[in-house]
Amino acid sequence: MELHFLGTGAGMPSKERNVSSVALKFLQTGGEIWLFDCGEATQHQILHTSLKPRKINKIFITHLHGDHLFGLPGLLGSRSFQNGEESPVSIYGPKGIKAFIDTSLNISQTHLTYPIQVIEIDEGLICEEEGRRVYAKKLEHVIPCFGFRVEEQAQPGKLEAGLLKKMGLPPGPLYQQLKEGRDITLEDGTVLKSSEFVSPPVPGRIVAILGDTKYCENAVELGRDAEVLIHEATVLHELAEKAAEFGHSSARSAAVTARRANAAALILNHISSRYHKEEKTLLLKEAREVFPNTQIADDFSVFPIEKLSKK
Amino acid sequence: MELHFLGTGAGMPSKERNVSSVALKFLQTGGEIWLFDCGEATQHQILHTSLKPRKINKIFITHLHGDHLFGLPGLLGSRSFQNGEESPVSIYGPKGIKAFIDTSLNISQTHLTYPIQVIEIDEGLICEEEGRRVYAKKLEHVIPCFGFRVEEQAQPGKLEAGLLKKMGLPPGPLYQQLKEGRDITLEDGTVLKSSEFVSPPVPGRIVAILGDTKYCENAVELGRDAEVLIHEATVLHELAEKAAEFGHSSARSAAVTARRANAAALILNHISSRYHKEEKTLLLKEAREVFPNTQIADDFSVFPIEKLSKK
Ligand SMILES: [Zn+2]
Ligand SMILES: [Zn+2]
Repeated sequence: MELHFLGTGAGMPSKERNVSSVALKFLQTGGEIWLFDCGEATQHQILHTSLKPRKINKIFITHLHGDHLFGLPGLLGSRSFQNGEESPVSIYGPKGIKAFIDTSLNISQTHLTYPIQVIEIDEGLICEEEGRRVYAKKLEHVIPCFGFRVEEQAQPGKLEAGLLKKMGLPPGPLYQQLKEGRDITLEDGTVLKSSEFVSPPVPGRIVAILGDTKYCENAVELGRDAEVLIHEATVLHELAEKAAEFGHSSARSAAVTARRANAAALILNHISSRYHKEEKTLLLKEAREVFPNTQIADDFSVFPIEKLSKK
Repeated sequence: MELHFLGTGAGMPSKERNVSSVALKFLQTGGEIWLFDCGEATQHQILHTSLKPRKINKIFITHLHGDHLFGLPGLLGSRSFQNGEESPVSIYGPKGIKAFIDTSLNISQTHLTYPIQVIEIDEGLICEEEGRRVYAKKLEHVIPCFGFRVEEQAQPGKLEAGLLKKMGLPPGPLYQQLKEGRDITLEDGTVLKSSEFVSPPVPGRIVAILGDTKYCENAVELGRDAEVLIHEATVLHELAEKAAEFGHSSARSAAVTARRANAAALILNHISSRYHKEEKTLLLKEAREVFPNTQIADDFSVFPIEKLSKK
C-alpha cells in the first residue's frame, strides 16, 4: 500500500497546499485506488501524479465541508472520459452526500458512463471486500465528521509442501490439517508439528485516515495499533484552544493520539496556510517530542506504508 | 476594462488549460470585477493573479455544465475569508443555478459573511447599473446556454468651460444649453455653436462574452459592433461537423461570427486539450484567414480592451 497526498491544506486552497484529499493505492490488486476526501481541484492534482482516475473504485468522504467535498462532481464527471468507462465507483460519506451528488450531476447534466453507488454511512463496519474491511467512527468537529480505519485481513501462513513431499508424504488431507494448525501423527508414529511446516501468518496492516477533529477518544480507537495514523494538525499547540473551538487539532494533540493509540507511525496533514515552509519544522518538532515517528505530508508526498512502520 | 482569462480549456482541466472562467475588470470603478463562468479551481487560478476575490461583485454563468460551474461554491465560500466580508455578490445564470448553489452551500454548511442574490435569467436585459447594461441571448448548445453582451453607456461630451469663461460668458443656464447640444445666441447677436464648445460624446464600449455554442445567429447579434467578442473555438474546422453535434464551434466559425457581427476584435477560448502549444497557431491561422484581428487566450492572458480594438 502507498499513500499519495493530493491536498494537505486546511479550509481554503493556498499556493502551497490544496484542500483535502489523500489516495490509498493498493499495489497488490492491480493498482486499485481508494480516495479519502475530494476537495476542489483534486482532479487537477491527480493530473500531476501517476494515479489513474479509472483505478479509483472507492471514495470515502469524512465530512461535508466544501474543502473535503467540492471536487467530487468534477472528478466523477471527468472520470467518464479517462478510460473509466465502465468500472463502478462506490462513494461513502455522511448523510447529505447523496443529495449533493444527485443535485450536482443532475443540474449539470453530467451523464456518467459507469455506475455509482452512494452509501450514507453510520458508525461501524461500512465496507468489506477482498480481504479488507473499513470501519468508521465519529470524530469531534463542528459538523458530523468520520474517521476511517482500513484493516487488511491477516494472510494465513504458507505450507512447505515441497519439504513434505521430499519427506515422502503425498499431498492430501494431512496437508490441510497442518495448514489449519493441527499437528499430525504418521503411521510410523512420527509427529509432524504444524508450526514446523507452516510459516507464521502475516498480520494484516491497519491504516487510519481521519477527518477534521479536535482531540477525542474515537480518534485513539481508530488508530489503535495502526501501521499509520493520518491525523489533522491544523495549528501549533499555542493555538490549540482556539482550534478546538472550531473542531481542529494541534500537532501535539495529534501526536498524543498516535501515542495513546500505539500506532507505529503518524502523518500530519490539514495544515493551516499560516504555516509556510520554514514553520513546518515547528509543527514537526512539536509532534515528535510526543511521538517520534511523525512525518508531515505535503501535496504530492508519497509514503509506502511498509517503510513507515517498523513495529 | 481588462479581460483576465482564468480558464481557457474545454470540458476537462488539462495541465495546460483550466476549465472556463474569465474576469472582466473595470479599471474606472475601483477595480470592480465581473466573473463570467466559474469552472472548478477558478479560485485556485485567482491565487496566481492580482485579482482580489472581494472585488468580484457579479458572476455570470453561461450554462450549467460542470466545467463552467463547479468552482462556484468553493469560490463563494473562500471569499468570506478574503476580506469580502460584507460586499454583496449577484449571480446570474440559467434556471437550476439557484438549486445548485443552495444545495452546495447548505449541505456543506458554508455560511457566507456577505449577502448573495441569485437571479435565474431569461433572454433580454438582465442587469443595469452605473452606466452599464448586460443583455443575454440564448446560444445553441446541448443544454440551455447564454451569451452575454456588456454595453457601457456613452459618456456625454465635456463642455469647455474655461474657454467660455475667458470669452466673458459667466457660468449659468447657457452653459447647460450648450452641454445639451443646443446652440445659443448672445445679446450682441453672436452665435455660439454647441459643437464648438462641447467635445463629441465618447461612445460606450461593448464586450460580448459567449458560452458554448455551435454557429448561430444570436452569437452574431450579441457581438454586433462589439469592441471585442469572446467566442469558443473548441476545434479546428476539420472537426467542425462533429463539434457542432455537441454544440461547439471551430475557430473558423467563430471568426465568421466576428466578421458578420462587425466586431473589432475576436478572442478565442474554450480550446480542446487535443491542441497543444504548437497546434495553437493552426487555430489562430484558421481564424485569421476570415477575421484578421483574432487572438487566442491562454490561462492568465490579460487583454486591455482599449488596445484590442482600434475601429
Ligand atoms: Zn477541513
Ligand atoms: Zn464547456
